[in-house]
Amino acid sequence: MTTSPLLPNHLGGQWVTGTGAGTPLFDPVLGTELVRVSSAGLDLAAGFDFAREQGGAALRALSYGERAACLGAIVKVLQANRDAYDEIATANCGTTTKDSAVDIDGGIFTLGYYAKQGEALGPAHALLDGERIRMGKDPVFQTQHILSPTRGVALFINAFNFPSWGLWEKAAPALLSGVPVIVKPATATAWLTQRMVKDVIDAGILPPGALSVVCGSSAGLMDQLQPFDVVSFTGSAETARIIRSHPAVAERSVRCNIEADSLNSALLDPTATTDSESFGLLVSEVVREVTVKSGQKCTAIRRVFVPRALFDAVAQAIGAKLAKTTVGNPRNEAVRMGALVSQEQKASVIEGIAKLRTEAEVLFDGGSAALVDADASSACVSPVLLGSREPAKAKVLHELEVFGPVATLMAYDSLEQAYELIRRGEGSLVCSVYSTDPAFIAAAALELGSAHGRVHAISPDVATSHSGHGNVMPMSLHGGPGRAGGGEELGGLRALGFYHRRSAVQASSAALDALAASAVPFKV
Amino acid sequence: MTTSPLLPNHLGGQWVTGTGAGTPLFDPVLGTELVRVSSAGLDLAAGFDFAREQGGAALRALSYGERAACLGAIVKVLQANRDAYDEIATANCGTTTKDSAVDIDGGIFTLGYYAKQGEALGPAHALLDGERIRMGKDPVFQTQHILSPTRGVALFINAFNFPSWGLWEKAAPALLSGVPVIVKPATATAWLTQRMVKDVIDAGILPPGALSVVCGSSAGLMDQLQPFDVVSFTGSAETARIIRSHPAVAERSVRCNIEADSLNSALLDPTATTDSESFGLLVSEVVREVTVKSGQKCTAIRRVFVPRALFDAVAQAIGAKLAKTTVGNPRNEAVRMGALVSQEQKASVIEGIAKLRTEAEVLFDGGSAALVDADASSACVSPVLLGSREPAKAKVLHELEVFGPVATLMAYDSLEQAYELIRRGEGSLVCSVYSTDPAFIAAAALELGSAHGRVHAISPDVATSHSGHGNVMPMSLHGGPGRAGGGEELGGLRALGFYHRRSAVQASSAALDALAASAVPFKV
Repeated sequence: MTTSPLLPNHLGGQWVTGTGAGTPLFDPVLGTELVRVSSAGLDLAAGFDFAREQGGAALRALSYGERAACLGAIVKVLQANRDAYDEIATANCGTTTKDSAVDIDGGIFTLGYYAKQGEALGPAHALLDGERIRMGKDPVFQTQHILSPTRGVALFINAFNFPSWGLWEKAAPALLSGVPVIVKPATATAWLTQRMVKDVIDAGILPPGALSVVCGSSAGLMDQLQPFDVVSFTGSAETARIIRSHPAVAERSVRCNIEADSLNSALLDPTATTDSESFGLLVSEVVREVTVKSGQKCTAIRRVFVPRALFDAVAQAIGAKLAKTTVGNPRNEAVRMGALVSQEQKASVIEGIAKLRTEAEVLFDGGSAALVDADASSACVSPVLLGSREPAKAKVLHELEVFGPVATLMAYDSLEQAYELIRRGEGSLVCSVYSTDPAFIAAAALELGSAHGRVHAISPDVATSHSGHGNVMPMSLHGGPGRAGGGEELGGLRALGFYHRRSAVQASSAALDALAASAVPFKV
Repeated sequence: MTTSPLLPNHLGGQWVTGTGAGTPLFDPVLGTELVRVSSAGLDLAAGFDFAREQGGAALRALSYGERAACLGAIVKVLQANRDAYDEIATANCGTTTKDSAVDIDGGIFTLGYYAKQGEALGPAHALLDGERIRMGKDPVFQTQHILSPTRGVALFINAFNFPSWGLWEKAAPALLSGVPVIVKPATATAWLTQRMVKDVIDAGILPPGALSVVCGSSAGLMDQLQPFDVVSFTGSAETARIIRSHPAVAERSVRCNIEADSLNSALLDPTATTDSESFGLLVSEVVREVTVKSGQKCTAIRRVFVPRALFDAVAQAIGAKLAKTTVGNPRNEAVRMGALVSQEQKASVIEGIAKLRTEAEVLFDGGSAALVDADASSACVSPVLLGSREPAKAKVLHELEVFGPVATLMAYDSLEQAYELIRRGEGSLVCSVYSTDPAFIAAAALELGSAHGRVHAISPDVATSHSGHGNVMPMSLHGGPGRAGGGEELGGLRALGFYHRRSAVQASSAALDALAASAVPFKV
């Protein structure tokens, strides 16, 4: 047996292969080894310095408009190579073409969105934040807040479930801000990230040092960070703890954005009935969230809150739809849902379901149906719907995120109780609300907003136009308080804030006039 | 000798005296013991719960306008008791009446500012952040970002140098946001904070649980924090590290604002001459910053950058002015500068000056002049101007903040070098720029913005109206990146952001119309 190819890293403006045999990446359906990665032996200090100094200076020399044009050029390169990405995703992520598109096209769409938004910022090199404010009686002395690109690098430590989107949703606002990017993809699915970076580097779109990729171990990366650098992490709460406790963050005040796990909820209006449109909309959305990418989305619905009277009817309707979900090898056109990304994830999901079952009953288990073109040794896991009629007594159900095709249906007795149970998630990325009543939706948004980064309301009038509970759109905030990590990403141009430093400039009107001439108003 | 009185804490809606003998607070000039504080034996868990549940719910039931009216009422109570605060400050802080006013009136002014700003927000209970954005082709589905008050407490761990302003600059935006406050003042000067809280509580302005004070040890406070709480700290980088590494922050994602130490700079335009107005403006401002509150301001100028040709002239001019600064007992009307707040601070400053002197020469030392009405055992320290003609070779001068009446003059050869040297502070609260040229000021603001929370430009046309390098105005951001802690306070209504959670509400136009009816646009 020959060893699979070792993917080179791009650091310090050049391609560098790590030392040693590296870590293999596998096809989670077939079990075959695909490629290897290694970050061993890299000169991280020199690589980070190169990005910070060469890459940063070159990016800051460009205007927002010029950097936006770079994003547009990246879109074209990625579109031209799209077929290769689909092949890599099928092999390495075990996803169907439709599920791979969520990651690949989601990334390209986000880049395109920032290319367009950035174009409107034009030739400026800094942003004017808010209006000029008088400081006293004499109007000659005023204050104007500005946002300046931070003079450091942006380190991304990314999750395995979105090797494409996870890179570009962070890199688009960073590069637009003039901040060089160093991405460390999760090892299990690093191939797609590495390949996309390679295509962009080969196309010569960005200045040297503006975009780097390190695959394999993350050892030593945090040690490189200096006070004006930033780090953005998506992944587990445990790794988040390590990052936030690292001296770079705890001592050197490196700005840190965390998106950790989350127990997102869906809430059905208490006035809904089995005949109401809201009922059907909730059922469809839950099924979609359980099955898309085999439930491996940080935004996926984990807890479904319905009025007690509807518990059985909702369980039956969701179960009936899940029963139609064929699971197996994504290369077979009959398959609707592929595998989890790895054997490790499969083991974790199976273990997690067992833990949830200590507090929940099984309402539907797709495991009795045969896998299509895949055997039991693959990383395929069939969808499962659990249920709790007494969620107020549950603990694990509100704490443990099982990152697979699993959700738990929960009965509530009053709206107040439902809100309280939803907040037991201690901060989530998203809550969706299903109702025909605009006043109820508005009240729910105000009630749930402080515990969620996003409230997604599905009413009959938006049934065909809404963007989906789990889809992260670039114009809306992505992140959530508390156990969701406390981070904020996207949200249109708000995302640029993380990569800029805000300053108050207190000066004479004449100086502020000169300042305004080389900056552009920042509007969200 | 009788023991001094033990100040009670206010927690759980009641006044509670700590157990044990407590820690004494002293007069730093006379050495006499004034009062004692103790947080031993307090039921912190119950106290935090009470604030979070009773205080939070009651505050959130009020509108922004109603909470702003509370701030206005606090202003009146504090103004009515102002004489008592001045007496406490003289005794416990060792400050002259003028210096005490920076703290006392600064706090009252900031409260008044937020009372006025908040009044304009009117009867709303949430803020609309930015415009409604279309999500796709069909305009029926859109996204609207909102800011909702966080459902937790705000814990303030404050510094010794601003017992009044340090409380109110944080509490004003927190209370206006509907978030209950628990303040832990620095022990050495806790008396003024405790007394102000007592007066406000006694006046019955705020609902029970909205404002609490714990004096003495901070042990156990961080342990109480839950995911929707926030903590705001002002103080040393070492304590900042402990706070950021605490499980509340590192694991539970408690939002954390840090303002740590800082090596703020002043920069004289390279075209300045000894005859230019900029020269005189810089000299006056440096002298003011060294002497106000004996240099115990986190914003004070620590490094003064001047063109090499002006080094000696600037040194002479600053020294001549410092020589006129009488130091001693603030009760004597001839005294311009009082004591440091404690013997500990005096020892720290003397030790710090010795460290700076390993890399700097002494250009002026006020220590040869006799103290007025105070002896050598008091915590008085006379002003010192150090100098370095080769600051590029210095290390300690750019790293060690000596928190007293000390600054270091530094010669630069080119503007590029000056910017590089200023950035060696690795992030500061403020840099002031002295120039007659608006274009130079604008360019300097863009160059220095990313490393500073504030750039303060002093030109002849604002000589009489500017607010001062070291004064923190509520309409401007206070904070700075890197070693300054990475925090953001004040900045007008921007300060409310820390106490609110941002959410994207994705919904039908009808639902967003209903939402808009109970919220108010958030503009800075």
